[in-house]
Amino acid sequence: MNANVDKPIIAITQGDPCGIGPEVVAKALATGEPTRTCRPVIIGSVDSMQQGIDIASANISLRRIDAIEEAQATDGVIDILDADVLDAADITPGAASEKCGEANGAWLIEAAELAQSGRVKASVMAPVNGEVLKLGPDAGQVFGSDPTQKYLTLLSGPLRVVHVFDHVMLEDVCRKLTSELVFAAIHKINEVLIDFGISSPRIGVAGLNPHAHGPQETNAIIPGVKAAQAEGIIVTGPISPDTVFRQGIEGRYDVVIAMFHDQGHIAIKTWGFVGNCAMFMGAPYLFLSVGHGTAYDIVGRGIASHEMMLAAILQAASLSSGKGFLG
Amino acid sequence: MNANVDKPIIAITQGDPCGIGPEVVAKALATGEPTRTCRPVIIGSVDSMQQGIDIASANISLRRIDAIEEAQATDGVIDILDADVLDAADITPGAASEKCGEANGAWLIEAAELAQSGRVKASVMAPVNGEVLKLGPDAGQVFGSDPTQKYLTLLSGPLRVVHVFDHVMLEDVCRKLTSELVFAAIHKINEVLIDFGISSPRIGVAGLNPHAHGPQETNAIIPGVKAAQAEGIIVTGPISPDTVFRQGIEGRYDVVIAMFHDQGHIAIKTWGFVGNCAMFMGAPYLFLSVGHGTAYDIVGRGIASHEMMLAAILQAASLSSGKGFLG
Repeated sequence: MNANVDKPIIAITQGDPCGIGPEVVAKALATGEPTRTCRPVIIGSVDSMQQGIDIASANISLRRIDAIEEAQATDGVIDILDADVLDAADITPGAASEKCGEANGAWLIEAAELAQSGRVKASVMAPVNGEVLKLGPDAGQVFGSDPTQKYLTLLSGPLRVVHVFDHVMLEDVCRKLTSELVFAAIHKINEVLIDFGISSPRIGVAGLNPHAHGPQETNAIIPGVKAAQAEGIIVTGPISPDTVFRQGIEGRYDVVIAMFHDQGHIAIKTWGFVGNCAMFMGAPYLFLSVGHGTAYDIVGRGIASHEMMLAAILQAASLSSGKGFLG
Repeated sequence: MNANVDKPIIAITQGDPCGIGPEVVAKALATGEPTRTCRPVIIGSVDSMQQGIDIASANISLRRIDAIEEAQATDGVIDILDADVLDAADITPGAASEKCGEANGAWLIEAAELAQSGRVKASVMAPVNGEVLKLGPDAGQVFGSDPTQKYLTLLSGPLRVVHVFDHVMLEDVCRKLTSELVFAAIHKINEVLIDFGISSPRIGVAGLNPHAHGPQETNAIIPGVKAAQAEGIIVTGPISPDTVFRQGIEGRYDVVIAMFHDQGHIAIKTWGFVGNCAMFMGAPYLFLSVGHGTAYDIVGRGIASHEMMLAAILQAASLSSGKGFLG
C-alpha cells in the first residue's frame, strides 16, 4: 500500500558522475522538501549517487527499485533506478570521462521515454558535460525535434522569462521577428500556463528597441499582441525592455516574454536570485534543468549549492500537479 | 573664515517645482551626509524649496547667498542661489506649469555655466518635466553639443554601466558598431576614470550576441578591445552579455561598457538597487541626474524616496574630489 500514490513521480537524472550533480541531488533530496509534494526517483548509478551522498554528508539512504511505479516518497530514503550502464571504476571526479558521457546519455533517454509515455510526470536534469554526452541516434525522436513551438524559459522566483529567439544573432532577431512568431509564442505559452493550473494567465511582452519604440514593435510585436488579445488572452505589451522584468519580479505577470536570449538572461542573471532553473515551455513533456554546470573545479568538496536543483525539483512537482509556479 | 573651503561646491538644481524634486532634495540634504564631503548649493527658488522642506518635514533651514563662493556646508543650513525667475504663485503642485518649465531651464543653464567656468565642481539635477522645460537657444553651447565622446552612464552601487549606443534602434546598433567606436569608448572612459581618481581602471566590455559570439564581436568588439589593450588599458572582453553585469556587481570592474541601451538598462533596473543615478562620462563637466521622474502622482505627500538624489550628490562629491566611485 503506497500512501503517496497521489504524488507525481519525478525522474531526476543524476548528471555527470564526475561533476557536482550527484552531490547537489543528494543535498536537495536530503532537505526533505521534495518528498512532501512528489515521489522523486533518481535515474542513475547507485555507486555514483552513494559517492554524492557521502560528499554531501547527506542523511539519506538509497533504495534500488526495479520499476518506476515502486516510487514511495519515504522520508530519508531515495528511490533509484539503476540500469547498470556505468562501472564505478570509470568515474573520474573532476575530469571528463567518455564512459560517464555514455551513461549520462542512457539515463537522459530513459527519463525522456518514461516522461513521453506518462510513467513519470516530469524529468529534472542535473548538470551534464555536453562535450562527452552521447545521446545516440534516437535522441531527436525522444526529445522532440520540432523547435518551432518550444521556448527556452528561465525561472527565478517570481521572475519567469520565456524567449522567442534563443541562440540567434541579434541582427537576425531584428530581421526575422514577425507578428506570426510573436502571436505563436503568446498563444502557446498561454495554453501551457493553463495546463500548469493558472486559469487566467497574465503575460507581459517585452519590446525589442529602447522604450519599446521601433520598427519591430510596429511591424511585429504590436500586431502579434493584438491578435492574441483578440483571442481573449490577457497579454500586455510591448513594454519597455528595461521595465518589464522588474514588473515581473513585482508579480505583475505570470511570465514575461522576451524577444531574444540576452534580454531575459541579463535580467535573470543580474538579478541574482539563487534558485534559478530552466525549462522548455511547449515541449512534449515537462523537462527542467539547473542554471549551473558540472563545476569540475569544486567536485567532491561538499560546497556546491543545491538551491537550483531543489528549485527545479519543487517546480517540476508543482507544475506537473497543476498547482502553478512556486516562488 | 570658511572651514569647509576644501570641500567641493556642488550645484543642485532643485527640479520641477510642481514635482517631487524639492522634497527629495530637502530629504537628501537633511540626512546631513552631503555636507560631510561637499558644499551643496541649491540653484532654484526659496519659495519652492521651503515648500519641499515643509512637505518632507526636514529639519533644515535655507540661507540665501549672493554668490556661489559663499557656500559653507553648515549643519542644518542649506545654501541657495535664487535668481528670482519664479513667482511662487505659478507653482501648481502635481501638474505641469509652463512658468516652472522656464524657471527650470534658467536654473539648469546657470548651473551649467557655473560648472563650465569651474566655479562649481559638479551639477546635480533633480527631476524636470521635459515637456515644459525651456532651455533657450544657447543650451547646446552650455551643455556641449558633441555627442560622440559623451557616454550615458548609470551608477547603481557597485554596478556602473557605460553605453556605447543610447537611444538607437537595435538593427542600427548591429549595423553601425565598429572597432573605432568600441576603441573610442574604452579610451575615453579610461581617461575619465583616471580623472576620477582611479589610477588603474579595470574595464569590462559586453559582447553583443549570445555568449559574445557573432559577427559584431569578430569585426568590431574584439579588435576595439585589442587596440585598447595595446595602449596598456586594463580591459577585458567581449564578455557574455548575460554574465558581465553580475561580474560588475561582484566588483570585478570599475565600469562595464554595454553596447546598447537595454543591455545596461535591463541589468540596472532589474537588479533593483535603490540608489541609482545617471551621468554622462566624457561630458565637458560633471553632471549627474536621478533615475526617477517628477512623480506628479505622489507630490506633496512626503513619501517620495530621496535615495537616488542622495546617491547622486554623494557621487558628485566623491568623483569631483578625485576619490573614485562610492558604493
